[in-house]
Amino acid sequence: MTVSEIDAIRHLLLAQPRPTDPAARRERMNSFGRRYALPADVSVTAADAGGVPAEWTVTPGADPNRVLIFLHGGGYMAGSLDSHRHVVAQAGREAQARTLALDYRLTPEHPFPAALDDALAGYRFVIERGVAPRRIVLSGESAGGGLALATLLRLREAGEPLPGCVWLSSPWVDLTLSGDSLITKAAVDPLIQKPYLAELARAYLNSADPHDPLISPLYADLRGLPPMLIQVGSSETLLDDAVRLAGAAGGADVSVTLRIWPEMIHAWHLFYPQLAAGRAALAEVGRFVDTCINYAGERR
Amino acid sequence: MTVSEIDAIRHLLLAQPRPTDPAARRERMNSFGRRYALPADVSVTAADAGGVPAEWTVTPGADPNRVLIFLHGGGYMAGSLDSHRHVVAQAGREAQARTLALDYRLTPEHPFPAALDDALAGYRFVIERGVAPRRIVLSGESAGGGLALATLLRLREAGEPLPGCVWLSSPWVDLTLSGDSLITKAAVDPLIQKPYLAELARAYLNSADPHDPLISPLYADLRGLPPMLIQVGSSETLLDDAVRLAGAAGGADVSVTLRIWPEMIHAWHLFYPQLAAGRAALAEVGRFVDTCINYAGERR
Repeated sequence: MTVSEIDAIRHLLLAQPRPTDPAARRERMNSFGRRYALPADVSVTAADAGGVPAEWTVTPGADPNRVLIFLHGGGYMAGSLDSHRHVVAQAGREAQARTLALDYRLTPEHPFPAALDDALAGYRFVIERGVAPRRIVLSGESAGGGLALATLLRLREAGEPLPGCVWLSSPWVDLTLSGDSLITKAAVDPLIQKPYLAELARAYLNSADPHDPLISPLYADLRGLPPMLIQVGSSETLLDDAVRLAGAAGGADVSVTLRIWPEMIHAWHLFYPQLAAGRAALAEVGRFVDTCINYAGERR
Repeated sequence: MTVSEIDAIRHLLLAQPRPTDPAARRERMNSFGRRYALPADVSVTAADAGGVPAEWTVTPGADPNRVLIFLHGGGYMAGSLDSHRHVVAQAGREAQARTLALDYRLTPEHPFPAALDDALAGYRFVIERGVAPRRIVLSGESAGGGLALATLLRLREAGEPLPGCVWLSSPWVDLTLSGDSLITKAAVDPLIQKPYLAELARAYLNSADPHDPLISPLYADLRGLPPMLIQVGSSETLLDDAVRLAGAAGGADVSVTLRIWPEMIHAWHLFYPQLAAGRAALAEVGRFVDTCINYAGERR
């Protein structure tokens, strides 16, 4: 029997169970990133994004006036520039954009709203460089997806310009953990189980209310947010976070594209060098960004 | 104050309230279709699709081996070849496909399963013409969307080949009328209100169970269905039918694309000659069909 690409990833994950110590968790996530050599045509430049450690990547043909800002996943506790560099660079290639990845502060050392403050600072840093807001793609994976939405809410409340579009992969947007798929998909999700999310939520909340829309944007009024691509796998406990977010955002008159990818697991894009569905999902991001930035006027 | 394109459509609909008599309802729906002259480059040919009145349309450049089968809306009570000819032809143009529209039997004269039997006969007619299943797009609007899904369920149960992809616009998939948006969107939907749906459901059911998956495919096991594009407007009482269908199909490992269009109303594609968002939604269908038929192998 042949092992499918996604099964090979499952085996890889099974062979490296997640530790409990935050430092060890971070190291494990970085080790996934190190599996994949960065293509030789990616240029990487460190940056200080308004006090937040960050880095630019550029691939050949990238429009210097188009910037994809990326907020990594890792449950607010892990994830780094190292863990996600390859996937951010590839997203930038597909979107024909420079990318700016933000190394926002993590739990348990820095609970809410430290990460959000950093994401906001990073966005403002790009705006201050003179990039037109409508040419910015704000993006995030998993916890970074929730963070991207919270950043938009803060920008909207402050009356600051919003980016042109939003890309969220496997977003975690409900820290009250109320989605049915946390149960119905538990048997097929190799990464994200409810007790793990509960632990991450406790560390991020630090006694704040999980219903706070800046913590669980599923409960926010999402009116006025930019066009949004939400990608999620069908083998994810967080499937319902994505589906309910699509309903909530769409119901609030946001232009929503929800893509559910059969058999894919949480944050499958990370494994794109050995996963065709990861490459296809990143190519889809490129098409979305193109449509969104070029044909914004055709939406109504 | 300028009137937006969608507001102009709202005014048009307000000026022609829906009558209660079935024949008058059908005439009203046909009159919307007659508003728009068919482009001169569309060729139309009547057909007998296994006993079901039908017609082909062809636009220049259409691939003769690619067929889009269309099931119109109208609540199983109205809608015809005349009401939808312009929009079907345009969908075919965007999908670079011949189209076959089916004039399936309507209520109250013909309750469930007459329409379903006709849809199935129409699909088999195309298969019998030698078209490869994977080059067939099965599509439907509103009640026709539910009908398209029921057709797929019947084909799957019979072990017959399924089409390559499915396009559903503003699908009605829950004849138990349980979606929250039937209430929350009632004030902004100019076409579809719960009492109207209840009346249509009664006529279609003819005392069958509305939970029957062939009547309300939202309650079906959707496993094994082809990639699906679901389009819905944010100003629709049927928004939740679309969102819940996306969740159910995606959860059953179907490749799902849900697109929620801000401010659009039920079946807005119908008005595409005077509505940019209608043209854009049809162009999106073309891109979906292309990706689906050409890159099927890249999905996993």
